[in-house]
Amino acid sequence: MSRKFAFLFGVHCHQPAGNFRSVFEKAFADSYRPFLKAMLRHPGVKFTAHYSGPLLEDMQNRERGCWDDLKELIGRGQAELLGGGFYEPILTVIPEEDRQGQLRMMSDFLAEHFGSRPRGVWLTERVWEPSLAKTLAAAGAEYTLVDESHFRAAGVADLHARYLTEEEGFSLSLFPIDKALRYLIPFRTVEETAGRLAEIAARDGLAVLGDDGEKFGLWPGTKRLVYEDGWLERFLDFLERERIPTLTFSEALDSRPAAGRAYLPPASYEEMMDWALEPEAAERFEALKRRVRTEDLRFLRGGSFREFFLKYPESDHLRARMFSVSRRIRAGGPPEALPDLYKAQGNDPYWHGVFGGLYLPHLRESAYAHLLRAEAFLAPGAAWRKEDLDWDGADELVWQDGKFGLFLKPSAGGSLVEIDHAGSFRNLTDVLTRRRESYHSAKPGPGEAGLSIHELSKTLPPEFERYLRCDPSRRRSWVDRFLGPETSWTNFRDRDFEDFGDFSEAAYEAEVQGPLVRLGRRARVRTGEREVGLSLEKTVLPGERGVRFATSVVNDGPGEAPLVFAQEWNFYQIPGELRIDGERIFLCGGRLSLIVRPKPEIWTFPLETLSQSEEGFDIIHQGYGLLTVWRLQMEAGGRFEAEAVLGESLEDPALRRDPPSGPRASGG
Amino acid sequence: MSRKFAFLFGVHCHQPAGNFRSVFEKAFADSYRPFLKAMLRHPGVKFTAHYSGPLLEDMQNRERGCWDDLKELIGRGQAELLGGGFYEPILTVIPEEDRQGQLRMMSDFLAEHFGSRPRGVWLTERVWEPSLAKTLAAAGAEYTLVDESHFRAAGVADLHARYLTEEEGFSLSLFPIDKALRYLIPFRTVEETAGRLAEIAARDGLAVLGDDGEKFGLWPGTKRLVYEDGWLERFLDFLERERIPTLTFSEALDSRPAAGRAYLPPASYEEMMDWALEPEAAERFEALKRRVRTEDLRFLRGGSFREFFLKYPESDHLRARMFSVSRRIRAGGPPEALPDLYKAQGNDPYWHGVFGGLYLPHLRESAYAHLLRAEAFLAPGAAWRKEDLDWDGADELVWQDGKFGLFLKPSAGGSLVEIDHAGSFRNLTDVLTRRRESYHSAKPGPGEAGLSIHELSKTLPPEFERYLRCDPSRRRSWVDRFLGPETSWTNFRDRDFEDFGDFSEAAYEAEVQGPLVRLGRRARVRTGEREVGLSLEKTVLPGERGVRFATSVVNDGPGEAPLVFAQEWNFYQIPGELRIDGERIFLCGGRLSLIVRPKPEIWTFPLETLSQSEEGFDIIHQGYGLLTVWRLQMEAGGRFEAEAVLGESLEDPALRRDPPSGPRASGG
Repeated sequence: MSRKFAFLFGVHCHQPAGNFRSVFEKAFADSYRPFLKAMLRHPGVKFTAHYSGPLLEDMQNRERGCWDDLKELIGRGQAELLGGGFYEPILTVIPEEDRQGQLRMMSDFLAEHFGSRPRGVWLTERVWEPSLAKTLAAAGAEYTLVDESHFRAAGVADLHARYLTEEEGFSLSLFPIDKALRYLIPFRTVEETAGRLAEIAARDGLAVLGDDGEKFGLWPGTKRLVYEDGWLERFLDFLERERIPTLTFSEALDSRPAAGRAYLPPASYEEMMDWALEPEAAERFEALKRRVRTEDLRFLRGGSFREFFLKYPESDHLRARMFSVSRRIRAGGPPEALPDLYKAQGNDPYWHGVFGGLYLPHLRESAYAHLLRAEAFLAPGAAWRKEDLDWDGADELVWQDGKFGLFLKPSAGGSLVEIDHAGSFRNLTDVLTRRRESYHSAKPGPGEAGLSIHELSKTLPPEFERYLRCDPSRRRSWVDRFLGPETSWTNFRDRDFEDFGDFSEAAYEAEVQGPLVRLGRRARVRTGEREVGLSLEKTVLPGERGVRFATSVVNDGPGEAPLVFAQEWNFYQIPGELRIDGERIFLCGGRLSLIVRPKPEIWTFPLETLSQSEEGFDIIHQGYGLLTVWRLQMEAGGRFEAEAVLGESLEDPALRRDPPSGPRASGG
Repeated sequence: MSRKFAFLFGVHCHQPAGNFRSVFEKAFADSYRPFLKAMLRHPGVKFTAHYSGPLLEDMQNRERGCWDDLKELIGRGQAELLGGGFYEPILTVIPEEDRQGQLRMMSDFLAEHFGSRPRGVWLTERVWEPSLAKTLAAAGAEYTLVDESHFRAAGVADLHARYLTEEEGFSLSLFPIDKALRYLIPFRTVEETAGRLAEIAARDGLAVLGDDGEKFGLWPGTKRLVYEDGWLERFLDFLERERIPTLTFSEALDSRPAAGRAYLPPASYEEMMDWALEPEAAERFEALKRRVRTEDLRFLRGGSFREFFLKYPESDHLRARMFSVSRRIRAGGPPEALPDLYKAQGNDPYWHGVFGGLYLPHLRESAYAHLLRAEAFLAPGAAWRKEDLDWDGADELVWQDGKFGLFLKPSAGGSLVEIDHAGSFRNLTDVLTRRRESYHSAKPGPGEAGLSIHELSKTLPPEFERYLRCDPSRRRSWVDRFLGPETSWTNFRDRDFEDFGDFSEAAYEAEVQGPLVRLGRRARVRTGEREVGLSLEKTVLPGERGVRFATSVVNDGPGEAPLVFAQEWNFYQIPGELRIDGERIFLCGGRLSLIVRPKPEIWTFPLETLSQSEEGFDIIHQGYGLLTVWRLQMEAGGRFEAEAVLGESLEDPALRRDPPSGPRASGG
């Protein structure tokens, strides 16, 4: 047997904290349970496994068979468990204190229930930044796994060895994951996998697999392939029969010296670095990758995970909210609030690639619910907070009185980016802006046949093109618009209208007077062939009975003006939760109401997106776009006043919503 | 005048703490002094300046004219001062505590002497990593300047605006430096610069210059251009006459809203990202850059600053030593040790590009001197410390008794990577390995005429090729070698010999017994047509009278063997400092001696490198390579014993060395 060669078999299993119960059950039945049973039958094959916190808790409470099998495998010395952030956060995008807290929570859990602290860490989505070496080492970790592409980017030639890196002198071992093994296992024959192992053995290297455990049974088609057709059994037989040396990662750490030091750039697996780019950039990057020689690929850099926050303002906002909660807990909140904060940090709703992620409303809803539960531990304020929540250099105004939460953005149309109903732990405005994704149209490269969306999926409804309509800017609420007299409901739905004013994106003056915020802006709007000046003033006043949003429009002239004044709202409501009755808009199946006076025309439409998932394309109901419309004939100097009052509804208080249904996420 | 356009005129001035007095004087006379005088004559032109700590201290102590002029300019509101790490460290490669310490030291200095704390920071060599946003914001900085290439890499289109970035929610403003202005000023006509400003004004952007102040008078040819020929006067006249709006950076911060958020990858200016690469990679990267379309350049990634530590083990070792000192100061050392530590963190000797940097012995010497001065504040140990100083996964053994410092690397030939003489604050082994640099041979690309080194420089001596000899591995001391009987002094000098053993790079067993370290290794060496086994044992014993290095070689057979056993040392000694008398090797002009017994043949040669600097190529004396050689005829079972004793010499104690002479560095 060679001096150094060994196969390091690592699997990572994860389901997001907010995922459906049924997904957890299916994942255990089809994948996690039979995988461990198979390993039990092959004591000669060592392996290393990572289960994220939600899975460990589920195992502990409901999947005792798995729990016991895992203990047995660890007791035998056949299995090692990896640590990680308990609720599977992307470590680089949460506060350092929470990184340490989540890593410690996992370490404590494993020490308590499985007898020892983990020496290694599974790096969520393998999102690496140089500063992580310090974070992980400070948390007691000795090693982690990253993709070979991380190493290629650093110019490292030998990808089958352990490396060291350091940050500020904090040292950490890194194992590069072999991409070929990731693609072979379990989709190609055992013989092909054996061939790859033989290649690595011939170079006397370490053959490292670190991949989603869900590919053993949960991914489409793999239950049959891996278990019914016996792939895994044949593979484990082969490893035992051929006496392929297998090691846990800690054993490799102790017995295989590091091949050198490496400094990896910020990176993740290759696919994610494409997903983080805007569609146009992603297309150019793909084309460039095809043109560049293999040995020069190391000089290419795709997107970084942080760019998801620039690409998706909703992801950015969720993160900004999460930071705000974290900051306030650290500033004196009770530690009881931490588990909810940590759950809200789980990576899934913060990004989007081939998994639904951000596009899945139930994952976003779960994240906001946990943030609001965490905030319930904090003392409610009785004042507006000025805070540059989203790091854009302009202060937001935040009100959180324990009943409603209001996040007002004077710099962006004096509009609301979040309205929370604390009693139901819901962000009522948690919708998604419709935007172009690169998979919406795969253009052919030069001399190359491209695939259209028609060919990519056969299951799209005939009218799918309506789901490709894009919104020019982020969907917010209480947005002031001036429409043309011909603008219709369908124009609004299709975002196919001109705004004759520029109030919707402009900065408003803001003034706080006790519980009242006064927002104001003067500007010109077009009316027919000419322009008039308008003074728009809005006030927000939260009170005992709810929140009053008042608006006044004054025609500064010159002359009389016909105006179609409208205010846009966007509500995260599943079908049936939103109902309109005259000037009353019922939310949450009647629990809340927004009463708008004077009685406007109310236009509403279901906001739907088209996104990709493992199985194909999903059309997802993200909520409702809603417009209150007033047709005005305003004299010079004339004033129009309107109000909207949001409050607990006196009607149907017992009416509670069902959990929203939608496409299901399977993690990994 | 446009709403937003303004010219932000930033200059950065720096000389390394260890640079020659004469360089400081010339820099003030030719550049810093006349620059400030010119600004005084043009009160209509606002500017922002950064002076590194060594310059501020020099101004305060010796250049009172400059000091007063600067105060006058600040008092007028015409100038703003930037902060930064006091001794101009690359912030990403020093410990966070020292980042904060150096930034605070500068902030305190400016507050004390110039009336207010700086709001912005000059980022040394513009070396950016994402984590810096937190570091700088935590230090109270509101903004910094980076190159437009940083922004291009992040896919940002509008390069003439202020941006925000954040790390863990710590927010920082970033100003992109216009590359065109950097190249125009002052090398092209004022009219061309005016043209560039007009272009930026037409787009209503911010025209940001942030560049070395030394280009105004100190860089070759610029004294004449800028002052004698009047470029600067004409430029300032133009700005005043045309009423070009100029702002300090803080004024721009307060009056110009951020254009958005950006997440920059680790980067510096483009040239440095080439320099950090190994020559072969640098050539491929250059070729790739030429092939790629301009709009796709954002997807290219060169080297990162950290790669200098992989490229130059001597830079890596200096940093490792610096970290070790920093750690020990933090663990209870007196704060009086900090200024020397900070001085040792100045960036210049840690890297090499077009400035001499690491290649300049007087800068390395200065860095080690400051580290040893800092260590003089720490309690000397009376024991060997085990420490993985250089983060390679193998422990070094360190002895520091206040007289000598020994850094033993059992894993690399049981050799020494550093020997310090505390009394003279010198690292006696601070030499440089001879290595290939990409500028040593510029190969022609496909279909392209290349420049040879002959064409690149006319001033090279005819025998320059001898300076291009490379060493296959890092130069260490007390390295065990077995030579062929024909190997000569010139073979040793030219590194043109075969080592018949593999002791020089192999791992030795190490055992610490009180003050004694025992190193051992058994292996085979070639002798004639066959091999014999050898047991090599070495011991190091520091004592009152000096340090004894003892070696024993035992022939384990089979049979008798003729062997040429040699031990290699490398000493940082200027010409005249090293002298050989029989078995005695005098160092430091006689102050120290290494007595080697039995009397060996001693081969020595001046270790010289060929490196580039602003003016062309420098041949630099880096010290001496030295080999002690014994020709042995060893019976089976026979033993050979040798020793080398390093101690204060009884001879010529008054003989002190002159400061070393060498090429001069001008900073920037």
